[in-house]
Amino acid sequence: MERIRHSRKLQARADAERAAGHRIALVPTMGALHEGHLSLIAQARKHADRVWVSIFVNPAQFNEKSDFESYPADFEADWEACERAGADVVFTPSSAELYPAGAQTWVDVDRLSLPLCGATRPGHFRGVATVVTKLLVAARPHVLVLGEKDFQQLVVLRRLVIDLGFDVEVVGAPTVREPDGLALSSRNIRLGPVARSRATVVVRALDAAEAMLRAGARDRDRLLERVRETLAETPEAGIDYAELRDPMTLELASERLAGPVVLALAVRFPADPDGQGAPVRLIDNRVLNALPATASEAADRNESLTLEECS
Amino acid sequence: MERIRHSRKLQARADAERAAGHRIALVPTMGALHEGHLSLIAQARKHADRVWVSIFVNPAQFNEKSDFESYPADFEADWEACERAGADVVFTPSSAELYPAGAQTWVDVDRLSLPLCGATRPGHFRGVATVVTKLLVAARPHVLVLGEKDFQQLVVLRRLVIDLGFDVEVVGAPTVREPDGLALSSRNIRLGPVARSRATVVVRALDAAEAMLRAGARDRDRLLERVRETLAETPEAGIDYAELRDPMTLELASERLAGPVVLALAVRFPADPDGQGAPVRLIDNRVLNALPATASEAADRNESLTLEECS
Repeated sequence: MERIRHSRKLQARADAERAAGHRIALVPTMGALHEGHLSLIAQARKHADRVWVSIFVNPAQFNEKSDFESYPADFEADWEACERAGADVVFTPSSAELYPAGAQTWVDVDRLSLPLCGATRPGHFRGVATVVTKLLVAARPHVLVLGEKDFQQLVVLRRLVIDLGFDVEVVGAPTVREPDGLALSSRNIRLGPVARSRATVVVRALDAAEAMLRAGARDRDRLLERVRETLAETPEAGIDYAELRDPMTLELASERLAGPVVLALAVRFPADPDGQGAPVRLIDNRVLNALPATASEAADRNESLTLEECS
Repeated sequence: MERIRHSRKLQARADAERAAGHRIALVPTMGALHEGHLSLIAQARKHADRVWVSIFVNPAQFNEKSDFESYPADFEADWEACERAGADVVFTPSSAELYPAGAQTWVDVDRLSLPLCGATRPGHFRGVATVVTKLLVAARPHVLVLGEKDFQQLVVLRRLVIDLGFDVEVVGAPTVREPDGLALSSRNIRLGPVARSRATVVVRALDAAEAMLRAGARDRDRLLERVRETLAETPEAGIDYAELRDPMTLELASERLAGPVVLALAVRFPADPDGQGAPVRLIDNRVLNALPATASEAADRNESLTLEECS
């Protein structure tokens, strides 16, 4: 495994790999690697014979300075994790490499960046879109592997790749979870023990909505009410958003649910009462399929969507 | 010479050319090719052994629909011009190829896009930056050849290439002029005979400023006054802007000129009195070097800039 720090060197390597007929998959990360990242690396290996992991804590995508400054970093551990997972190259650019002095070029994916995390974290997706554009220019991968946990990010970057014309296949990889269902996140280590135990309410809220949908409920607002009720069982859980949206366009789901929808949650947890841990905001989501309840409802729909079409 | 219409095919060709060790220069154009473009192609040939010309009238960079709709187009003539000039590939993407359905990704070069044409043509440089990003992703050139006539565009795109990390050398090529000094522009053919004769006032204004500077004048506002006086000799010439700015940062030149400055002009000419031609807005510029007048002034300056350093 090799460490590369400079875009020019990575570009030369990409040229050489492509000339030799190799297929490159890029797994962009901000370090603090956990099993979720390792599953992305494993996915990457399925789609390519060269697996490159970038580690860069992108200042432009943090809307809160304290979040940026407290973002966990342990390069030695990340390096070992990449090596164990079988990465070929670890790209560790400096800030000056990706944001040279005087940098002022920004990439915006307009409408898809507006709702959900875009509404609560102004500038976040501009930062994500800009840095991923730079990473794609630097690494020239055939495949870009992203986690489905950051659902909106996945949708935004799929759009970016199409719009800017990158010849890149975007692969979304399923969220990896703790045994109790909590989605893995680099921010989980900032949860105190009490908050950690409270945090499972997020996945219980997703479960509750899914169960209600499976039982035949199709009323958007009743489903969201159930989600909020479930979250309210943990009074310390502060809801940033809880929304049902179209998984491709991210437009609000219609009042009467039909076809695939994504239930997207962002929930804040305070530090523990005894001061352990820190305030943490967690996101999670689930793509649900509101299958037509009756044949006549099915006939009302113009087309038959499957989960694959929106993943 | 080959015509390529699709980005994917161009990308595959770029990969093959790069694998074979060839060097690609891209000359992006909106067609309506004139001798100015041909000089860009000739410049490209000096820097690369593969010369690719793109022809795409980019709707996103027109802030006036009428300007877009009346933009001259003659593909047969452009094709022949490229062939004569020795281009290897002509890339003619459709609008749907560069702006696929639902496209919403935009590239902004912030501060450099604000003054001059950015102030009078809102959204223009966003359109330019976005389309050139797409062209660079599609063509993967080693060299990007741009005319110095569109000076701000050159500065904006130099910045974009640095900021997004494209491994591309940006070559600025000198403006080609008619015998009477008028800078070549695809829009010149829309000038009626009277407006065509009036339009030479633009280069006379540049000449007047340069002469004054050579004679020792260093007062920014007096120079600009001279420029405006010269333009006023043609009362029909409407000044969009006439400014002296730093050629790299595009910041306003200081009141006391020192070092290189660019004099940038945008001037509107109406259709001829007899109805011939159409209203046309022309731009032109000249990089001037306000050399220190005395040794003590030279000593006051931190560094010695030369024209090369800002071109």
